[in-house]
Amino acid sequence: MSKSGVTAPMGFKAAGVACGLKKNNNKDLALIVSDTTATAAGIFTTNIVKGHSLKWTMDKIKKGSAKAVVINSGCANACVGERGDKDAARMAELAASLVGCSPEEVMLGSTGVIGFPLDLEKIKNGLENAFGNLTPDGGSEAAKAIMTTDTYPKEASKTFLIDGKTVTIGGMAKGSGMIHPNMATMISVITTDAAISQQLLDKALRTVAERSFNRISVDGDTSVCDKVLILANGMAGNNPITEEDANYDAFVFALEEVSVTLAKMLAGDGEGATKLIEIRVNNLSDRESAHLILNAIAKSPLVKTAIFGNDANWGRIFTAAGYSGAKFDPDKTDIFLGDLMVCHNGIACNFDEEKALNILRQKEVVITLDFKAGNVSDRIWTCDLTYDYVKINGSYRT
Amino acid sequence: MSKSGVTAPMGFKAAGVACGLKKNNNKDLALIVSDTTATAAGIFTTNIVKGHSLKWTMDKIKKGSAKAVVINSGCANACVGERGDKDAARMAELAASLVGCSPEEVMLGSTGVIGFPLDLEKIKNGLENAFGNLTPDGGSEAAKAIMTTDTYPKEASKTFLIDGKTVTIGGMAKGSGMIHPNMATMISVITTDAAISQQLLDKALRTVAERSFNRISVDGDTSVCDKVLILANGMAGNNPITEEDANYDAFVFALEEVSVTLAKMLAGDGEGATKLIEIRVNNLSDRESAHLILNAIAKSPLVKTAIFGNDANWGRIFTAAGYSGAKFDPDKTDIFLGDLMVCHNGIACNFDEEKALNILRQKEVVITLDFKAGNVSDRIWTCDLTYDYVKINGSYRT
Repeated sequence: MSKSGVTAPMGFKAAGVACGLKKNNNKDLALIVSDTTATAAGIFTTNIVKGHSLKWTMDKIKKGSAKAVVINSGCANACVGERGDKDAARMAELAASLVGCSPEEVMLGSTGVIGFPLDLEKIKNGLENAFGNLTPDGGSEAAKAIMTTDTYPKEASKTFLIDGKTVTIGGMAKGSGMIHPNMATMISVITTDAAISQQLLDKALRTVAERSFNRISVDGDTSVCDKVLILANGMAGNNPITEEDANYDAFVFALEEVSVTLAKMLAGDGEGATKLIEIRVNNLSDRESAHLILNAIAKSPLVKTAIFGNDANWGRIFTAAGYSGAKFDPDKTDIFLGDLMVCHNGIACNFDEEKALNILRQKEVVITLDFKAGNVSDRIWTCDLTYDYVKINGSYRT
Repeated sequence: MSKSGVTAPMGFKAAGVACGLKKNNNKDLALIVSDTTATAAGIFTTNIVKGHSLKWTMDKIKKGSAKAVVINSGCANACVGERGDKDAARMAELAASLVGCSPEEVMLGSTGVIGFPLDLEKIKNGLENAFGNLTPDGGSEAAKAIMTTDTYPKEASKTFLIDGKTVTIGGMAKGSGMIHPNMATMISVITTDAAISQQLLDKALRTVAERSFNRISVDGDTSVCDKVLILANGMAGNNPITEEDANYDAFVFALEEVSVTLAKMLAGDGEGATKLIEIRVNNLSDRESAHLILNAIAKSPLVKTAIFGNDANWGRIFTAAGYSGAKFDPDKTDIFLGDLMVCHNGIACNFDEEKALNILRQKEVVITLDFKAGNVSDRIWTCDLTYDYVKINGSYRT
């Protein structure tokens, strides 16, 4: 244990415990508590089907403040009707009575299988256990407790200065299937001891999400429980950030570093993944086309299996761009694997297959498409599609 | 060999030979010749990247007539620049000189890996061999020669009466990855001895494709070489169909029967598939929502792996509908696996898991979503996502 992740900033305690929601006795309940009431903001799934715990949080965070976050894995608390809403409220009440705050200050998250109710008895015992184990270096335990099919807990943190005061941003995240732009099956909690207005905290989160959590894709599925929350408790003692000044910029840069680190971990640890794939599009004429091409390539099972198989089958990359609905001139398109040009102006290059193989064998593969038409560039992270993805998802409920 | 597939109608001969484009000596060149010049129509990929053989055919079919069809597998003749266009023209010339027609009357198709040029010497020898082997019962050999990763050749035919004359429609198709609405990686050739105007032949093909070939999805990828062609040589001797009368309707019904049969074969034989999945949406308020939901579910790797694993994880089906962008009320949605209701008004049913397992173990699984909001219904066919899909596509070029 160390002061990592959500407990890296001052004034946050966390714990992660096993309360029996997961059949394998792994940790399944995380509790994070701020010493003081924190300013809070969140971004939520765009799926029109929404989990009950998520709906609670979407509603309560409107007030802009929070004292605690409770996240369980092992059960999504989704699609169980009125009972799901009541269970969410009860979970918040239980946590609030332990922490000593209002239930409205408890943000919730549930991740796991859809269609089964929460076991409140287990949650109650788990919350008491977690509360008793809260420590200022419990971030890593909390990160473990929110995992579903993740292969490792995901944490990141960044320290920087505002007016000579040390400010820290820390975070944790879980994936790992159903990851796709606009808050797919991921839950991330970010904490900071910065003092910042709610309006700017919200704006910073939205700005950064667009460059990090909304630029990853594992399988194109978007879950009903996805969210990223940020809590800022002001304990760094900096002059509060209330304008879009240099201090705000410093905050955004640091938040982006934490968020991109977590986002890349999520993409690279996609279910069954053996590789992180970064897809870059350069010099397009419009942002919508960039978005369409990145998403089409990142979602293409043919591209993702080819990368898994170390097969330099760039035709599939070009094909995905072609059917994406984007506007571009195929006869001006260049495609690179790493720094190796494999297609020039839409025509196959006579490239070195051995060199391509060496590039594809790396743990991180960069694919770049240059359209030579404008000045819009963007990127997305995804992973390869493997036997293990099928294995993991063919028997998730059992 | 029998009078099946493209040689089921009168006046069509076909052959399928191995000319060495495929490394494994399997058949890779199909030739179909109509005794008389046939009326012709076609539908082509919407991908903005287009193969050279496909571009030839898109251009030449504008005249509305054809005498021969040549399709090679083993090489897509795509993304190789000017040479690809010249090779396509040369392939048509070679076939035309054998058949005794104008090159403009030869329709082409190429399917296989992108970015490698055709070996014209092999094509030339293959065409001569195929021409020497043309027979009125060669449809099944032609169907074998167009296969890429298909596990079996796909043929269908239907006989019906127009004014007492027997009319036949026959067809063949190949898949089997990159299948998706709007002419994904599929090539289909349909022949008929019906006499029908070019305008109505074209209209019938478009009408029927919308209910068959545009309602299948294997992996959401749309290739650069996809097409469906229809040739009508009039040798049945029926009074030509020139109006949208009862005879036209009879033609459309028969064409739909052939096309749906082929389309379902393509979906069920998707790469690595063990099951055909039919997804139905009922009682939606608009056609666009139906389209969005069907495509989202059919493309969801999470749904497709769950069906592979016989896992009644209906939450993934609901989730895919939810993120599809469609308009519907989650709280009014019912979901069925076969005839078993698993979700009622957006809430999990306490269904019999054993019964669900029996339904999911079948070779054909029907998923139905009832939105109880309007009168729009539609359906799509897809397949499960398996280890073998990953295996096949991880090493396609090698």
